[in-house]
Amino acid sequence: MTGPRALVFDLQGTLVDFHAPVQRMGAAANAAKGLALDWPALSVRWRLLYRDAMDAVIAGRAPWRRVDRITRDALDALLDEAGCADAFTAAERDAMNAVWCRLDPWPDSVAGLQRLRRRFTLATLSNAGMAAAIAVVKPAALPFDAVLSAELAHLYKPAPAVYRLAVDFLDAAPHELMMVAAHAYDLRAAKAFGMRTAFVARPLEFGPDTPPPAMDDPAFDLAVRDLHELADRLER
Amino acid sequence: MTGPRALVFDLQGTLVDFHAPVQRMGAAANAAKGLALDWPALSVRWRLLYRDAMDAVIAGRAPWRRVDRITRDALDALLDEAGCADAFTAAERDAMNAVWCRLDPWPDSVAGLQRLRRRFTLATLSNAGMAAAIAVVKPAALPFDAVLSAELAHLYKPAPAVYRLAVDFLDAAPHELMMVAAHAYDLRAAKAFGMRTAFVARPLEFGPDTPPPAMDDPAFDLAVRDLHELADRLER
Repeated sequence: MTGPRALVFDLQGTLVDFHAPVQRMGAAANAAKGLALDWPALSVRWRLLYRDAMDAVIAGRAPWRRVDRITRDALDALLDEAGCADAFTAAERDAMNAVWCRLDPWPDSVAGLQRLRRRFTLATLSNAGMAAAIAVVKPAALPFDAVLSAELAHLYKPAPAVYRLAVDFLDAAPHELMMVAAHAYDLRAAKAFGMRTAFVARPLEFGPDTPPPAMDDPAFDLAVRDLHELADRLER
Repeated sequence: MTGPRALVFDLQGTLVDFHAPVQRMGAAANAAKGLALDWPALSVRWRLLYRDAMDAVIAGRAPWRRVDRITRDALDALLDEAGCADAFTAAERDAMNAVWCRLDPWPDSVAGLQRLRRRFTLATLSNAGMAAAIAVVKPAALPFDAVLSAELAHLYKPAPAVYRLAVDFLDAAPHELMMVAAHAYDLRAAKAFGMRTAFVARPLEFGPDTPPPAMDDPAFDLAVRDLHELADRLER
């Protein structure tokens, strides 16, 4: 069996850290408003709220909307729940929500992708919108050959139609593609679609004080500590 | 008035040369089959045939098909017209058709895009399919932030829906975008859509013996000799 022809990558959490940027944004918001909101807890809740809204789209219970609009509505709900609905204007909330476009690459992301790109076509396959994915990739200097986003299917991962984007737009059979992600739900769906799978451990995804979810499904083709190990394994 | 935020580029003819690769392919085909086909003339005819098929899609007279399938059918028609329908197998024609994915960057393309990318978001906006556009961009090492293709609209330039892809996926208003192309029809449509326009002269587009069509519409924002001049003008 020959190797994959192209690698497709989850972005948020897998190649870029959202925890630190959200905490920086939250600390600045607390300071500006004289609040003491618990942003480590709020960021976990924010993600749960917007994941629920994406799942409603996948289930057909809600029409497709761009994820930046979903996270913006989820922020409203989050601030309501936290009892500080009056503290932030709409424009301030827009600026807070833009944090999802200013994410920090993990230390191995740029160099690891550079190595992998010599041999493989590399594309994102992100639940972020196209513009948001481009906004994350460009300043982080992540070297991709193409930016693909669930927006192109008007659905969200783990819906199969999102994985099909890679088949259609990279002109490869599912088994010629490898999905690389730090999230088992994403890899399980890619595997069910017929793609190869590589799990990248990101123990700091939820911050230094929160261990990541335990890997309950080790049945992926590769499980690596970082992109350097992924390149090592694929170069064998 | 501030400058554009993002530049979108036509690919074939504007950033890459198709004339020389098609002539190389044709010379090899002639040699393999002992033929004396006039490939400079055939390549002009090939483009006319497949442009007609794309226009039929835009006009709604034909369903959308990926452009590589359109060029493949046009090659069949071309070889029929040339009276050598029996000379090439289907597999040989597939290989000949793949020439549209192996195009040579113009000498200024890579360095010019590198300069422009420091300041602007750069995307393709090509009539090639996504996979074909990626296949052209990657080996030519054209430094783009995103690959956008008319395939995402299931239409072809100059249909307005193709230009709208840049608005939607780069999250910019039309006037914040500049279309860069060597073809007046493309720039006229971009201008009608509200985008800024930059004409790049490519006098060798149809080979050293065929002058390019005269510029019948000088009403573009910029007209430059190459991408270095474009970068110079936009840096002012």
